[in-house]
Amino acid sequence: MAAASGPQGDQLQLEATSESCWQLWQAVRAKRPLVHCITNFVSMDIMANVLLAAGCSPAMAHSLDEVESFVTISSALLVNMGTLSSDWVAAKKLAAKKAVELGKPWVLDPVGCGATPVRTASCLDLLACRPTVVRGNASEVLALAGAAGSSGVKGVDSTAASGDAVEAAKSLASKHGCVVAVSGEVDYVTDGQALVAVRNGSPLLTLITAAGCSLTALIAAFLVVAPGQPLMATSHALAVFGLAAEEGLQLAPRPGPGSLRVALLDCLHLMERAAVVEGARIEVVS
Amino acid sequence: MAAASGPQGDQLQLEATSESCWQLWQAVRAKRPLVHCITNFVSMDIMANVLLAAGCSPAMAHSLDEVESFVTISSALLVNMGTLSSDWVAAKKLAAKKAVELGKPWVLDPVGCGATPVRTASCLDLLACRPTVVRGNASEVLALAGAAGSSGVKGVDSTAASGDAVEAAKSLASKHGCVVAVSGEVDYVTDGQALVAVRNGSPLLTLITAAGCSLTALIAAFLVVAPGQPLMATSHALAVFGLAAEEGLQLAPRPGPGSLRVALLDCLHLMERAAVVEGARIEVVS
Amino acid sequence: MAAASGPQGDQLQLEATSESCWQLWQAVRAKRPLVHCITNFVSMDIMANVLLAAGCSPAMAHSLDEVESFVTISSALLVNMGTLSSDWVAAKKLAAKKAVELGKPWVLDPVGCGATPVRTASCLDLLACRPTVVRGNASEVLALAGAAGSSGVKGVDSTAASGDAVEAAKSLASKHGCVVAVSGEVDYVTDGQALVAVRNGSPLLTLITAAGCSLTALIAAFLVVAPGQPLMATSHALAVFGLAAEEGLQLAPRPGPGSLRVALLDCLHLMERAAVVEGARIEVVS
Repeated sequence: MAAASGPQGDQLQLEATSESCWQLWQAVRAKRPLVHCITNFVSMDIMANVLLAAGCSPAMAHSLDEVESFVTISSALLVNMGTLSSDWVAAKKLAAKKAVELGKPWVLDPVGCGATPVRTASCLDLLACRPTVVRGNASEVLALAGAAGSSGVKGVDSTAASGDAVEAAKSLASKHGCVVAVSGEVDYVTDGQALVAVRNGSPLLTLITAAGCSLTALIAAFLVVAPGQPLMATSHALAVFGLAAEEGLQLAPRPGPGSLRVALLDCLHLMERAAVVEGARIEVVS
Repeated sequence: MAAASGPQGDQLQLEATSESCWQLWQAVRAKRPLVHCITNFVSMDIMANVLLAAGCSPAMAHSLDEVESFVTISSALLVNMGTLSSDWVAAKKLAAKKAVELGKPWVLDPVGCGATPVRTASCLDLLACRPTVVRGNASEVLALAGAAGSSGVKGVDSTAASGDAVEAAKSLASKHGCVVAVSGEVDYVTDGQALVAVRNGSPLLTLITAAGCSLTALIAAFLVVAPGQPLMATSHALAVFGLAAEEGLQLAPRPGPGSLRVALLDCLHLMERAAVVEGARIEVVS
Repeated sequence: MAAASGPQGDQLQLEATSESCWQLWQAVRAKRPLVHCITNFVSMDIMANVLLAAGCSPAMAHSLDEVESFVTISSALLVNMGTLSSDWVAAKKLAAKKAVELGKPWVLDPVGCGATPVRTASCLDLLACRPTVVRGNASEVLALAGAAGSSGVKGVDSTAASGDAVEAAKSLASKHGCVVAVSGEVDYVTDGQALVAVRNGSPLLTLITAAGCSLTALIAAFLVVAPGQPLMATSHALAVFGLAAEEGLQLAPRPGPGSLRVALLDCLHLMERAAVVEGARIEVVS
């Protein structure tokens, strides 16, 4: 945790501490919010397990017939664009609109935005549904912001550094009135004015499929306990997930992606105050 | 394992021992039954792995074009209501009817029953297809039995204790001629008259997504080797799964859900006679 | 690794060494090829994780609207027949045709071929799309080759030994101009003339769901770095996957399928030259 003095950083200066990170997570664990996830097939197992381990309750439902009902009984919504069948995209739009109607926070994960024309178009459709937060890697955010074409995206992995997408993220956030998070070696979070850097995590996370997807679901949970403070909630969720990876790597018998996945889940369940307060590295850059 | 003397417990008194639990499991391992699973996306990986580890052969097929063929070549059917797209529900009904037609046991897992109207209606539709066994948590069983409205269900996790659903389970079992199992800290199994309590397992299982779904698939496998004895088969499957969790927790390097999932699969594969005979806690309550 | 002297084995004699196995894998890791996978639901998590751990980049996209775009930006295609909904089969055909059109290698995994009539028919449809490589277990290859009816297939697990399918594999390879790999205790690979045996792996792999599916995806990655040499690429991918299982079993705390899955992924990421050069057992049989 570092102090900061940017012009828009005053409120954050008070709030974005490693102590507030722990307290917000405890609020999540205490409330155990139901997070409705409409996500891709690859991510379902690990996403549900990450939410459970972190103290939340997942609901993975995508049928057009019941997504509105699930938004109604849930505290937050996660929409992930990995699976793009037409009925899924329709269900995502329906759910997002319901969330906005009910005043519930929802997070968009524009998986692979820029990789194919239909994917970019679908992501833009969902962006128009006014997400509270958008979380992607640098290539996805660049593509979504229109700052890059599809050239920078190789499948669903990022080929640009997170810092390269900061200006695109700010522009996207300002234009659409949302918070945008760019994942990478350093994670950046912005509401279009303030910029927060989170320096937790491990490069090995990129070798666990859907780790980023799961992180986005965790952001949705944190939004529930910090109404009106999406910048803080997002930064803190990023720090918690990154910390669990750092601690997981220390506990894992080998620095491999199989062991890290197991230990990450354990640490999300077991992590205590000292590890968070001493380890969270959230800096208000400006 | 405890003795019992309820009026309907005579047959069970002879059969539901920890020794019979081991023998039934050995029969499963020897036969290696093909269990046809039509289940939700979140559960597919762990369910198939649980069946393989326990000595069964899973088949995860849901296409309307081939579910009847798969029922025909399988020894038992598992129908899980987690994924509710209309073509999936149709495939589930078709498969259930085929199983009944061929005299093969089938098990219903009413995931999230009560959470949304369409979900409750779909579960009731499948219940009308005459399952051999229904396995759910207390909220699901309460909702399915009509003893509660949708108010008691929060997503797919239970908010009621298993004991609260015993009367609903008995009523459901009597009315529909099936065995009903209610999972919880204590698992209860009833055929409408006799009531069996199984006291194996770990609360940490609730933090592993689809652990309950996988358990229901294991019940289907046990039904294969105990024809006409669904109460015993279900109780024994519950004990075996719970025991594997208990032993897994002892072997795991940390009491976390990631480690438990790994160790649970190992123990289902490796568990030997002594652990089952000494550890199974199946009690005929009445 | 053993020398060999079959009439068609000359080129292989030079190339299929454990040293070449290491070098080919290093080429994969250096190129980090994007492998487009249209696979079944059960396999998605482990397949993406296997590709990531081995040094590849997975793309799991199946929507009819974008499979052609994904083939275009990918280096190879994997088509797995586990999930057989009609729109999925259509997407698989479309993707396979696009791969052939663009001259990109693609691999067919005929999951459960022979188990149901619709499944066999769909596999034959895809076989007609001219795969570069077909990888299955003995029962699947026997069924696909028409050397057996559906009688030899029990679900998706093999009931025949790999050696029983060698002649069927040769016939299939000759007739369709592809390489055919038969997995089993010994893996056999043939282009219709030469026959290669790979003796790596562990029987415990058969208790990890979708291990074979994931292996087939790895073959697709190896094809990228060995253009025109599908026999060598396939054999080497089989050896690498088998070796990771062998080493994983040594590192695992218990000989169980849960631990093996974790250690397998670790070893795919961490394995170094000595383990491959000393451990790969690739023999040109004829």
